[in-house]
Amino acid sequence: MYRDRIGLTSLWGKVVGAEEAAMHIKDGMVVGMSGFTRAGDAKVVPMALAERATEEKLKITLMTGASLGSDIDRTLAQAGCLSRRIPFQADPTLRKSINAGEVMFVDQHLSETVEMLRSRQMAPIDVAVIEAVAITPEGGIIPTTSIGNSASFAILAEKIIVEINLHQSLDLIGLHDVYIPTRRPHREAIPITSPSDRVGLPYIPVDPSKIAAIVITEKLDSSANIAPPDAETSAIADHLVQFFRGEVRKGRIGTSLLPLQAGIGSIANAVLHGFIDSPFHDLTMYSEVLQDSTFELFDADKLAFASGSSMTLSGPKGKEVFADINRYKDRLVLRPQEISNHPEVIRRLGIIAINTALEADIYGNVNSTHVNASMMMNGIGGSGDFARNAYLSVFVTKSVAKDGRISSIVPMVTHVDHCEHDVDIIVTERGLADLRGLAPRERAHLVINHCMHPDYQDLARDYLKDALARGGHTPHVMERAFEWHLAFQQSGSMLPLAKAAE
Amino acid sequence: MYRDRIGLTSLWGKVVGAEEAAMHIKDGMVVGMSGFTRAGDAKVVPMALAERATEEKLKITLMTGASLGSDIDRTLAQAGCLSRRIPFQADPTLRKSINAGEVMFVDQHLSETVEMLRSRQMAPIDVAVIEAVAITPEGGIIPTTSIGNSASFAILAEKIIVEINLHQSLDLIGLHDVYIPTRRPHREAIPITSPSDRVGLPYIPVDPSKIAAIVITEKLDSSANIAPPDAETSAIADHLVQFFRGEVRKGRIGTSLLPLQAGIGSIANAVLHGFIDSPFHDLTMYSEVLQDSTFELFDADKLAFASGSSMTLSGPKGKEVFADINRYKDRLVLRPQEISNHPEVIRRLGIIAINTALEADIYGNVNSTHVNASMMMNGIGGSGDFARNAYLSVFVTKSVAKDGRISSIVPMVTHVDHCEHDVDIIVTERGLADLRGLAPRERAHLVINHCMHPDYQDLARDYLKDALARGGHTPHVMERAFEWHLAFQQSGSMLPLAKAAE
Repeated sequence: MYRDRIGLTSLWGKVVGAEEAAMHIKDGMVVGMSGFTRAGDAKVVPMALAERATEEKLKITLMTGASLGSDIDRTLAQAGCLSRRIPFQADPTLRKSINAGEVMFVDQHLSETVEMLRSRQMAPIDVAVIEAVAITPEGGIIPTTSIGNSASFAILAEKIIVEINLHQSLDLIGLHDVYIPTRRPHREAIPITSPSDRVGLPYIPVDPSKIAAIVITEKLDSSANIAPPDAETSAIADHLVQFFRGEVRKGRIGTSLLPLQAGIGSIANAVLHGFIDSPFHDLTMYSEVLQDSTFELFDADKLAFASGSSMTLSGPKGKEVFADINRYKDRLVLRPQEISNHPEVIRRLGIIAINTALEADIYGNVNSTHVNASMMMNGIGGSGDFARNAYLSVFVTKSVAKDGRISSIVPMVTHVDHCEHDVDIIVTERGLADLRGLAPRERAHLVINHCMHPDYQDLARDYLKDALARGGHTPHVMERAFEWHLAFQQSGSMLPLAKAAE
Repeated sequence: MYRDRIGLTSLWGKVVGAEEAAMHIKDGMVVGMSGFTRAGDAKVVPMALAERATEEKLKITLMTGASLGSDIDRTLAQAGCLSRRIPFQADPTLRKSINAGEVMFVDQHLSETVEMLRSRQMAPIDVAVIEAVAITPEGGIIPTTSIGNSASFAILAEKIIVEINLHQSLDLIGLHDVYIPTRRPHREAIPITSPSDRVGLPYIPVDPSKIAAIVITEKLDSSANIAPPDAETSAIADHLVQFFRGEVRKGRIGTSLLPLQAGIGSIANAVLHGFIDSPFHDLTMYSEVLQDSTFELFDADKLAFASGSSMTLSGPKGKEVFADINRYKDRLVLRPQEISNHPEVIRRLGIIAINTALEADIYGNVNSTHVNASMMMNGIGGSGDFARNAYLSVFVTKSVAKDGRISSIVPMVTHVDHCEHDVDIIVTERGLADLRGLAPRERAHLVINHCMHPDYQDLARDYLKDALARGGHTPHVMERAFEWHLAFQQSGSMLPLAKAAE
């Protein structure tokens, strides 16, 4: 039954079990696997690898699009299979191995990984493992629910293993638009001038002689594990909708706004969800991951078109959407993450970028990745591709975490992923700070007054007063800059004991 | 004599003195002036403004391309004329006003200022003051030694004052290529696929009825105040040349490398100068400021073409080059800084970006702007446009400053302008650290061993050991992170007393 999914009949003989396919991967190799935000990941070959690693030395460099589902990162980390992991992850077990220094994690802007591979600035891919809906009669690979880095991995790899997933619908065919930039210095412009432009092929063009093995699978993607909108995320959405109403009123943008990007996760998803009850219409998205909110906006007739690199949906929404994907197909396109996140296209289209901050400081610098300076959470992902090059760069976060014991707005972030130059708007459930065209001293007052939780405002004002007394363009007191974080480390709360006891 | 420089004869009647022209500028206005890295700045109207400010309340928002020469920023700051300054400066007196909180300085990526103006995300330009070689018969303005933001300032301003500088040679005509991106969301690709492509007009097209006044001047640009190459900058250049020889040997790039960008200042200039004695040839530049080294490379027959936004030369080199500019004209183009620094073009061409760090940390984060977290030096300039989007992002610095009392490599930078994701290579006179594809723990060893001054290496290893004991992807000890900076504040040296006394 799987043979109708392998159009190039000379490849029929390449079908093998996962264990046999995985034998192409040897100790020390660089392996590029499909998978972006839990969507379209290679599922059975990595598991066979982990199994083999219990019996022999087997450590690889694993590159993917972004985070994986199906417990793959967990299983590979537990099996001790990973020496190096590039460019993103979001698994708690792997995170522990990274923070313990057991796995070297190379945290990259998501648009950059294949640029570096293509120009041979990183070690080349030995084997690519790509989940596919089918193989075309020419040997082209049709990806499933994500493209991520799969196209360039397959094109650049010595060998390719294809996982044909019979549970991924053939209706996905035609959704993909595979465009690969030409090599520099003779590169042409990427010919995308609208989110809906199709400029490439509906499959990954590869030399079929490189396809070393084909494995048949039936495992579905992991569902998104996002929290539904709550009072705080709804308040964040409301503040943003109010802000955009003001921008429209001032004539800066029209009622279709500009193409939207929203980072992965519950808060960004909730913010987009909040646009359902907005006065905006004919919205477009030029984003990386398309979450539940994308399809809710389609169903509410708010969204005209969505371009992404993956579809990562909750269980119920996934069931509904994938059963009826044809309904959305003419309004959807999936692209390689190099293109979904490409600075050239982001700047040209004028993207409104909405990403989540782990913490932000009073001057508008944003930490997306590290707890207390040292501990990696997930990675910078695509936020840097978008924030630097967007028309408008918005960062959202709840004002506090851990029942108020952590303030997400601090005097100085302990790690900077997005410097103040790349942060236009900060929004918490408390309010919105519009930082455009302001100097750091002006930013500080806005961020404290509009975004910070009231429990922390006096502390912040005290810090700022001390800093202002010493002067500077961005006034700081170096010996006090991390005192909130140190207090948390010592007492379990950023609040002083007296305040916490209130 | 000046009338032959005003091709549109209906404008002859607009010629007035600087004081009268400056009367178009009123208290509270936003003024956009020409000038980029001391080149092509409006010279007499700002001086007339400063003069007037001694007698009446006159505070403006001053926007330029980048830094100004001719003591303009100093004079305006001393006269109390500046309420807000955007997007870059490099003047010691203005710096003091900024750090004292008297002038609100908005430090921006140099490609972004006119994007924000065009989309009305910042207050609009009331008056543009543009130095010009001449005005065409259609009323087009031909800039002098820089374009910077002049084109968009003039196009967007309510009124324009032109300073025709009789001492700027008519031979500059034809050097400029004024291309303005169309408005989003319907923007087309910028059609530059090679540094030498000319895609715009040789003048700034404006509605001539907006030209409110024309002033005739004869003041030359200020010369560049860069130090000549010394033993340390030569060593930095040597390390880089060695590195690029290796890249060529590995087949990653050819002997013409890729288009070069070099930031302003002595070190970057010296690095380019060092390419004279390299095996590379037919080099190209796609940069912002063109310094002495550009013309030295031309004269050494190493450089095939240079694209920039300004020419900022030392006294002797300027005399030589501008007397004979026709000799270079077919190998030179000046562009608006939005285009010289445009992410789209930078990424497409595959730029090798060489910028100067104020300090870098052991993990590869770079501070380009702030001393001890608070005190602004100059501004981020174009370094962020290039570092994020380049093929290769190099940062150079001497390993120590102030006779060894400051280490330019520190445990944690006190301000981040370029996060580790945007820093591929760090070079000091001690050596080069190639950070590509490495995790932070690996980066730390390379940076300490290759780039740091030996006097500080043990201190850094001690910090790193303490940090590693606590763990993390980017191991830090928050309470010790700035201890070197605090030691300098307290004792005048980052070295412990015992070590300093050796």
